[in-house]
Amino acid sequence: MDPVSFPFAHRFDQVSGSAIREIFKVIAQPGMISFAGGNPSPDALPDQMVREIASEVLLANGKQLLQYGATEGYPPFVESLKQYVYEQLHCDIPAILPVTGSTQAMDLLCKAMIDPGDTILVENPSFLGNIQCMKLYQANLVPVESDDSGLLIDDLEQKIIQYHPKMLYTIPTFQNPSGKTLPADRRKKIAELANQYHVIVAEDDPYRDLRYEGSSLPAIKSFDREGWVVFLGSFSKIISPGLRVGYVAGHPDVIRKCTVGKQSTDVHTANLNQAVVDQFIRRNLLPDHIRSICAGYGEKMRFMLKKLSEFPGEVHFTHPEGGLFIWAELPEHMNALKLLPQAIEKKVAYVPGTHFCVNGGHENTIRLNFSNSSMEQIETGMDILNQIISNNL
Amino acid sequence: MDPVSFPFAHRFDQVSGSAIREIFKVIAQPGMISFAGGNPSPDALPDQMVREIASEVLLANGKQLLQYGATEGYPPFVESLKQYVYEQLHCDIPAILPVTGSTQAMDLLCKAMIDPGDTILVENPSFLGNIQCMKLYQANLVPVESDDSGLLIDDLEQKIIQYHPKMLYTIPTFQNPSGKTLPADRRKKIAELANQYHVIVAEDDPYRDLRYEGSSLPAIKSFDREGWVVFLGSFSKIISPGLRVGYVAGHPDVIRKCTVGKQSTDVHTANLNQAVVDQFIRRNLLPDHIRSICAGYGEKMRFMLKKLSEFPGEVHFTHPEGGLFIWAELPEHMNALKLLPQAIEKKVAYVPGTHFCVNGGHENTIRLNFSNSSMEQIETGMDILNQIISNNL
Repeated sequence: MDPVSFPFAHRFDQVSGSAIREIFKVIAQPGMISFAGGNPSPDALPDQMVREIASEVLLANGKQLLQYGATEGYPPFVESLKQYVYEQLHCDIPAILPVTGSTQAMDLLCKAMIDPGDTILVENPSFLGNIQCMKLYQANLVPVESDDSGLLIDDLEQKIIQYHPKMLYTIPTFQNPSGKTLPADRRKKIAELANQYHVIVAEDDPYRDLRYEGSSLPAIKSFDREGWVVFLGSFSKIISPGLRVGYVAGHPDVIRKCTVGKQSTDVHTANLNQAVVDQFIRRNLLPDHIRSICAGYGEKMRFMLKKLSEFPGEVHFTHPEGGLFIWAELPEHMNALKLLPQAIEKKVAYVPGTHFCVNGGHENTIRLNFSNSSMEQIETGMDILNQIISNNL
Repeated sequence: MDPVSFPFAHRFDQVSGSAIREIFKVIAQPGMISFAGGNPSPDALPDQMVREIASEVLLANGKQLLQYGATEGYPPFVESLKQYVYEQLHCDIPAILPVTGSTQAMDLLCKAMIDPGDTILVENPSFLGNIQCMKLYQANLVPVESDDSGLLIDDLEQKIIQYHPKMLYTIPTFQNPSGKTLPADRRKKIAELANQYHVIVAEDDPYRDLRYEGSSLPAIKSFDREGWVVFLGSFSKIISPGLRVGYVAGHPDVIRKCTVGKQSTDVHTANLNQAVVDQFIRRNLLPDHIRSICAGYGEKMRFMLKKLSEFPGEVHFTHPEGGLFIWAELPEHMNALKLLPQAIEKKVAYVPGTHFCVNGGHENTIRLNFSNSSMEQIETGMDILNQIISNNL
């Protein structure tokens, strides 16, 4: 085939989609210990439960599940989901839309709200997939300063005044990639600023149920008065990412725009997948399942933190109370990108933190995932990383 | 909740999403005979086959199916799909991407190619969902003239020269809503014009297998030399729309951009849904299943055409050889929008053709679906429509 130069849209000018692609190819090599992904542990994936439920719902209601569904969602799921989210967030949820994974929630929210050049305030570092999403909507991404507990409210307010942003994108609980959790008083303040300055807050909270220590915190959404906070939820971490079921909840006008966008995005989320999650909720299977996931992940997280405490004192790291990730900062002069080939040669993979940084930089940072490795792999892999870092001090 | 005025994106300025919403609410009324939707017949939905396959693939490979998958698709499905599409189109398919229904194929192709203000040439009338998609990408939609066999090549070339379009969107086989099928010589000519003038052709071909008369025609894609034709395929009409599995096939550079767009749109199409379609292909279940669907739909189409031949001579209609729709033109002075309440009062629903027209107008047209009604419903419903139209001549 001759080389052809296609006239691609300008929204791709800043997006290559390849940032961590090569790393994920490497992970697939046999014998690799991977701290790189954000995958649930295979133990946490309830394949037998899904199999039984899929069989039962297809027997009971197969024709309806295989037919076109409403963009607004599979009606029994919309009903159970509304109740579930109400119990999760302890606040009124006036409108909710099931979506094809919470990544689609962000895509639809950007489709609803973002014109090219609009400013979105973001945590820095933040979730790579949604940074790419916002860049494809040609948003102007402006980082807000954080401390060990997440976003700094003073800097947030100053940047709102300075940039008149359309949106703030935040992962307040066990943030990806930092593992940080925003305290309740800052959550309340964010909701107040959103209402005062008329800024949409995209509250992305997929890790909320993966808490291994401390107590649950109120959602930013629970402090919202007028509807400026939009809550993005997911069943990827507590049932299965492969099923692609999430939701977006918020003001009816915002959810309505997301729904119209979804009509011509994928018409509706697959009915079978919605029906499976619906049964997890209706049969009250989630509390026990989440407890069992958290027991395993909590043990791994504490062990990885213990192993990090054996690293040279110049290495700093976050102390998450849940989620999937720990964020480590090496001494300033070290470059995690350049150390990666040494680690991979010894069969250990991680993601250099610079990939999560909106404007690059921060080459001395690393994101470490603990959920998808065994205790033995954490022991071996962290010893290898410790050695590589110590050798390069 | 107080009324709030949210700063929605300008891409929604021309899109309300509500055009045929009210009609579809009406269809749900008990006792309604609906010629309005484009739904498969419940008889055509293989719920028991899907149930057995879902159970088997989850037993054999449940952990992998519930885990995150690659944006590029579930590897066994990509393999079987490539072979399947090759056999369908009799041409080399250098790259293919499984998507969440072929509606997503169009969304990703527009994401890859269309900047605001770019011109897209379209058939008029055309598929409502994708018209909305193109409008949300703020494209300038320019209709191309058709005759009884579809797009007129002379008008197409003249409009290419006049408007320098980025894309042509066409449904060449059993078009929605007109039921028209483009002859082979025009298909070849479209591929040649696309290569000559460097225009992307979005060849949307979801009805291809639903042929009840005549012989299969080569895809526009099969005449493509350089890769300007992108083929959008679907399993919605031959397995199940509720599963949301389709594909986009074409030049590797174009498919790569669609893949990067998909990374931040829904990460990947649900693995279970891809695995189910994969097994339909691998077990060679489609030929028999399609034959059985076509037998039933063909009988319904012929009966609806016979009933239309009993209408007053002033009513003209298309004579499709397959698909799901017949398009009828009432006398110029009649308005299908205004007749609809009379039909609904007598428990018959259809979609006024104006909703499928890019710039409105054509109020004397009607789209009729035959697949989702029984023979008895077609008899009763068409007699009622005949009477209403005769009374309003």
